[in-house]
Amino acid sequence: MKLWFVTPYREEPAMRIGVLTGGGDCPGLNAVIRAVVRKGVSVYGHEFVGFRDGWRGPLEGDTMPLDIGSVRGILPRGGTILGSSRTNPIKIEGGVDRIKENLASTGVDALIAIGGEDTLGVAKQLYDRDVNVVGVPKTIDNDLSGTDYTFGFDTAVNIAMEAIDRLHTTAESHHRALICEVMGRHAGWIALHAGMAGGANVILIPEKPFDIDRVCEYVESRFRTRYSPIIVVAEGAHPIEGQMELQAGTLDAFGHVRLGGIGEVLAKEIEKRTGKEARTTVLGHIQRGGTPTAYDRVLATRFGLQAIDAAHEGDYGKMVALRGTDIVRVGLDEATAELKTVPVSRYSEAEVFFG
Amino acid sequence: MKLWFVTPYREEPAMRIGVLTGGGDCPGLNAVIRAVVRKGVSVYGHEFVGFRDGWRGPLEGDTMPLDIGSVRGILPRGGTILGSSRTNPIKIEGGVDRIKENLASTGVDALIAIGGEDTLGVAKQLYDRDVNVVGVPKTIDNDLSGTDYTFGFDTAVNIAMEAIDRLHTTAESHHRALICEVMGRHAGWIALHAGMAGGANVILIPEKPFDIDRVCEYVESRFRTRYSPIIVVAEGAHPIEGQMELQAGTLDAFGHVRLGGIGEVLAKEIEKRTGKEARTTVLGHIQRGGTPTAYDRVLATRFGLQAIDAAHEGDYGKMVALRGTDIVRVGLDEATAELKTVPVSRYSEAEVFFG
Amino acid sequence: MKLWFVTPYREEPAMRIGVLTGGGDCPGLNAVIRAVVRKGVSVYGHEFVGFRDGWRGPLEGDTMPLDIGSVRGILPRGGTILGSSRTNPIKIEGGVDRIKENLASTGVDALIAIGGEDTLGVAKQLYDRDVNVVGVPKTIDNDLSGTDYTFGFDTAVNIAMEAIDRLHTTAESHHRALICEVMGRHAGWIALHAGMAGGANVILIPEKPFDIDRVCEYVESRFRTRYSPIIVVAEGAHPIEGQMELQAGTLDAFGHVRLGGIGEVLAKEIEKRTGKEARTTVLGHIQRGGTPTAYDRVLATRFGLQAIDAAHEGDYGKMVALRGTDIVRVGLDEATAELKTVPVSRYSEAEVFFG
Amino acid sequence: MKLWFVTPYREEPAMRIGVLTGGGDCPGLNAVIRAVVRKGVSVYGHEFVGFRDGWRGPLEGDTMPLDIGSVRGILPRGGTILGSSRTNPIKIEGGVDRIKENLASTGVDALIAIGGEDTLGVAKQLYDRDVNVVGVPKTIDNDLSGTDYTFGFDTAVNIAMEAIDRLHTTAESHHRALICEVMGRHAGWIALHAGMAGGANVILIPEKPFDIDRVCEYVESRFRTRYSPIIVVAEGAHPIEGQMELQAGTLDAFGHVRLGGIGEVLAKEIEKRTGKEARTTVLGHIQRGGTPTAYDRVLATRFGLQAIDAAHEGDYGKMVALRGTDIVRVGLDEATAELKTVPVSRYSEAEVFFG
Repeated sequence: MKLWFVTPYREEPAMRIGVLTGGGDCPGLNAVIRAVVRKGVSVYGHEFVGFRDGWRGPLEGDTMPLDIGSVRGILPRGGTILGSSRTNPIKIEGGVDRIKENLASTGVDALIAIGGEDTLGVAKQLYDRDVNVVGVPKTIDNDLSGTDYTFGFDTAVNIAMEAIDRLHTTAESHHRALICEVMGRHAGWIALHAGMAGGANVILIPEKPFDIDRVCEYVESRFRTRYSPIIVVAEGAHPIEGQMELQAGTLDAFGHVRLGGIGEVLAKEIEKRTGKEARTTVLGHIQRGGTPTAYDRVLATRFGLQAIDAAHEGDYGKMVALRGTDIVRVGLDEATAELKTVPVSRYSEAEVFFG
Repeated sequence: MKLWFVTPYREEPAMRIGVLTGGGDCPGLNAVIRAVVRKGVSVYGHEFVGFRDGWRGPLEGDTMPLDIGSVRGILPRGGTILGSSRTNPIKIEGGVDRIKENLASTGVDALIAIGGEDTLGVAKQLYDRDVNVVGVPKTIDNDLSGTDYTFGFDTAVNIAMEAIDRLHTTAESHHRALICEVMGRHAGWIALHAGMAGGANVILIPEKPFDIDRVCEYVESRFRTRYSPIIVVAEGAHPIEGQMELQAGTLDAFGHVRLGGIGEVLAKEIEKRTGKEARTTVLGHIQRGGTPTAYDRVLATRFGLQAIDAAHEGDYGKMVALRGTDIVRVGLDEATAELKTVPVSRYSEAEVFFG
Repeated sequence: MKLWFVTPYREEPAMRIGVLTGGGDCPGLNAVIRAVVRKGVSVYGHEFVGFRDGWRGPLEGDTMPLDIGSVRGILPRGGTILGSSRTNPIKIEGGVDRIKENLASTGVDALIAIGGEDTLGVAKQLYDRDVNVVGVPKTIDNDLSGTDYTFGFDTAVNIAMEAIDRLHTTAESHHRALICEVMGRHAGWIALHAGMAGGANVILIPEKPFDIDRVCEYVESRFRTRYSPIIVVAEGAHPIEGQMELQAGTLDAFGHVRLGGIGEVLAKEIEKRTGKEARTTVLGHIQRGGTPTAYDRVLATRFGLQAIDAAHEGDYGKMVALRGTDIVRVGLDEATAELKTVPVSRYSEAEVFFG
Repeated sequence: MKLWFVTPYREEPAMRIGVLTGGGDCPGLNAVIRAVVRKGVSVYGHEFVGFRDGWRGPLEGDTMPLDIGSVRGILPRGGTILGSSRTNPIKIEGGVDRIKENLASTGVDALIAIGGEDTLGVAKQLYDRDVNVVGVPKTIDNDLSGTDYTFGFDTAVNIAMEAIDRLHTTAESHHRALICEVMGRHAGWIALHAGMAGGANVILIPEKPFDIDRVCEYVESRFRTRYSPIIVVAEGAHPIEGQMELQAGTLDAFGHVRLGGIGEVLAKEIEKRTGKEARTTVLGHIQRGGTPTAYDRVLATRFGLQAIDAAHEGDYGKMVALRGTDIVRVGLDEATAELKTVPVSRYSEAEVFFG
């Protein structure tokens, strides 16, 4: 009864499939898990086992039950019912061997790994060592090559845009520089899309060191109008080498401004140079929490459906990906090939609205 | 100063460009207008004139000023500052000639027409008669061929999804069939995406006449669980020929169930056949009103930037379109070639979750 | 450690307290349950038992565990983890006796009943028969006397207001009468507040039969301006006796327009009389689902804290209530004394904005 | 026609009334202005003049037209169409006299002043010098005595609550202390209500210097569970005297932690003492921008209606106020009598949920 619409698939011997989620929070993780399990059980008749906290699960053999019941009602919820961690078995003596042993001992035929560059990098190495793995790309920063977009990004952009929308009210009635710091350590996608959607006056991204003189010139020219400037800055953005004296402790190991700090640093510099008040909003973790947008729920669900199809068909070593409106499969190596940063062409589109 | 980031374009003689919006409401129209004017003025030095209420404007020579000031603050606002209408000059004796005269008399060198199938169809015919036209596709139903997605659709899907999310609360605590009627006269895209994102138990779309016996069988099987069924139905969905006796007046000229009626019709039929209560939510116009999502604001803005580039370059007879992550230009005829309906493959994805 | 801020209460012998939720859905029910259990366990050291589905629980002795763990994470969630029903033990032969027996056999010292007029009416009768009961008022319609406001109402009003906000976009660009049907069977509070907050042009409530001639006169006068009329109508609103011919089946037993029907009836009548298009949005159950607003979460939490204090102190036969900014206790009979409808003075405030 | 529902008022000679808004941004200001003008014009037949930027307007005779047309569509919009400033004529040599002259020269019979403690303080002094003034209380912090609540507060609390809701997702899957800094310089109302509504684990407010040892003890005990702690801190909160060494520049003139700084200071201290990561979200100005909630729109509208009634009746020297469900009038001095801070009783309610 339940699947009366579905054209029946030819019967296959049922499999036991493991699922894990690695890396940072990302709205849509639960939607992927739900889709994998719902189709895997009701269409293919497979059974599932959840591994807790990313690679720590298979590494330590820490599992949890995963069936239709456990995925009920999780579609709209942020986070992941499987838990997550940044554990990397490759950096652990004999880690990969222990994972292979634990997969064998739990009778897992195949593994679906949902995560970012690191998680999929491990998946690739396990696949090279004969583990049946299918990958699902996850990065809220949208900086993963091999897929047009990833789930979580649209949610983060909408949260940041709504914050910018609210800042406009104040910008219209007070003379203050309003700074909104958003996520983006190495790639400025969230800043670019949120800034463009929110009508920001300047967008600063990691890909292009900013010229503080220019920013201040602009801020002052803006103050000569009725409207205050709204500046969106990615957490990984930084000034042109040596242009600003950054107090000790503001820099991290890479010589970059410490995460979560650039907004405040920028505010102080603008106040010092322009004599005008500058106020900062730091969105932080609220960008990666809460319920996913429709776009992210649909994309995550379609990723999950494609991933279970790949596992069912024994098409391993692949990562699911979005290409246009289609969900396709690409080699796991493509995912980790390179960091997808904002190209000049996209940044130039936004520059039209600066000032 | 204002464009310090932008690589300067080679100087062109400035143009006078007309802009109009036709057809139904769609969140993002103002974002397109803003992008066209902002780049046209600040980068190219062109000037603009707005035509009121779609093709009625050029037909009657009804214009309004359109400059940087008039597009300030409109990015987050729904509707269109130019107004709209369904006026079709082609169906009016000598309509096209009057438009050509009025464009000439207002000194307009080129026209940017933002609208759906009808609006772009007129644009195509004007182009065939030597009018310099660039088209921007607009349809909240996402049923326009030639572009992956159109702005407004994502907003409508999110509004419908949020409504479905709320219905789940009741579904968990009361024994009622909950029906949510969404937009979609000829294409079920909104029902498909909102239903998939909201975790609906059945999705009914115009492309596939539904089997009321199946729907009721399902509803009853669902009532044997703790959860009530949530049914998402597109306004254009209809039962298999002759399966339901539809009372007089329920059908429209096409023999389809009258718009805005199918939800109520379905509720009564389910109550009659199952003896269980059924309650309907009809979202109606709230799906096409209000502020656009980030996705729609970015897409609409990028459409506008590409459209003004095309006009600036004299690349007429084209429509801007989304292909993957790129904004490209396609022939105006492509836009009106055919209606883009939901393919079986996409509907089958959703069916996995039915029941 | 956990309660380092709290001034310790004098020790009391611990009690076993039952909790139930009756009647229709209402955002905030879980917040009440959580507050009762959190304070009852961590401050007073009491233990709790949940009764399922309102009065059906104690009637049939259907219980569920209720401790700190079971209330974790439920604050933001709509619905009720205890389930609900409209079961009325008083209408059942020997119902009250069976409840007393079941309370005794489950060792329950006191009962906290969360619900509306019916639920609290039963609570009152049980109290009169020596059952230790404390009541918490719940009605999304805000029609309960004895308390300034109840939780759930603010959430419903915000949902309806957001819908009206979106309708304004269309009202500004198309010539259509836009009708929004909201909840309110006997009291028009939701229509009044949502209509006032959304800037509706006419608000129709059950307390004042409407004059269809006036409504249509107004609609036509409005059509002579650039803006279309937005009409908010409570589901229980009805025309002046005999003014409109209502087709058979449109009326219910009370001779009122069938629930969920008035919006459609009004649309047809307006179209017939004015010749203008009229479109209806029926919000239905989405008004009582989903996450509660901050106002409702705080009010529900404070109600729960006051209810457990009353039970702890043995102050039975009381209902908690909001008076100004204080949570007080009133007699259970006050709750059921009379229906709180919209007074003329409040409706007149809104009339200033009609037209 | 327009006011067919309204019982006609007896005719009065029309007046010319000035309106101004002073102090910081607050959602609902436009709703007050709209209500004043809509009722003043359509019911009483008065005319209005807007003074720009708070007291700067009447001080410099800077006015703008204010009629039915200028208040159309402003109900849902944040900010104020009249602009605002912190100009205080009392601190300006001969300021009050210049205001009286300008009111006379613009033919203003009465003034409606919308603002906080400072703005209403000036209103009081003008009233004492025979200026016809009516006050409307405005403070997003809800710290004004004489009224139960003020508009803007509910909106700010909901924005902060939504941010906390999103942090819970991360709190469930990562081991980090999550800090959310909200507004509240001298009063902790926003922190208290948002923290209670969001289910925060600790709430720190200006009224009660916090014990950092306790906070860290708690954080560490929490880390022994599966959930990370979420700490809501008001910008004006501060540690017990001398308990934390605050680096130079962190303190302001009052020896308080610099505004916008406490969240970051707290994060660093927690990291230093517990060795666990701590991340801060600083909501800043987004709490006072954007569209008002339904509660704030209704309250602001009712304040406006009561204010124009008072002016119409010549009942000057009064401030409108909320008492329970009624809008009343109190002496202007009551408004500025004292700062309304969080009482111990309300804070103790919240403490029940700490830990």
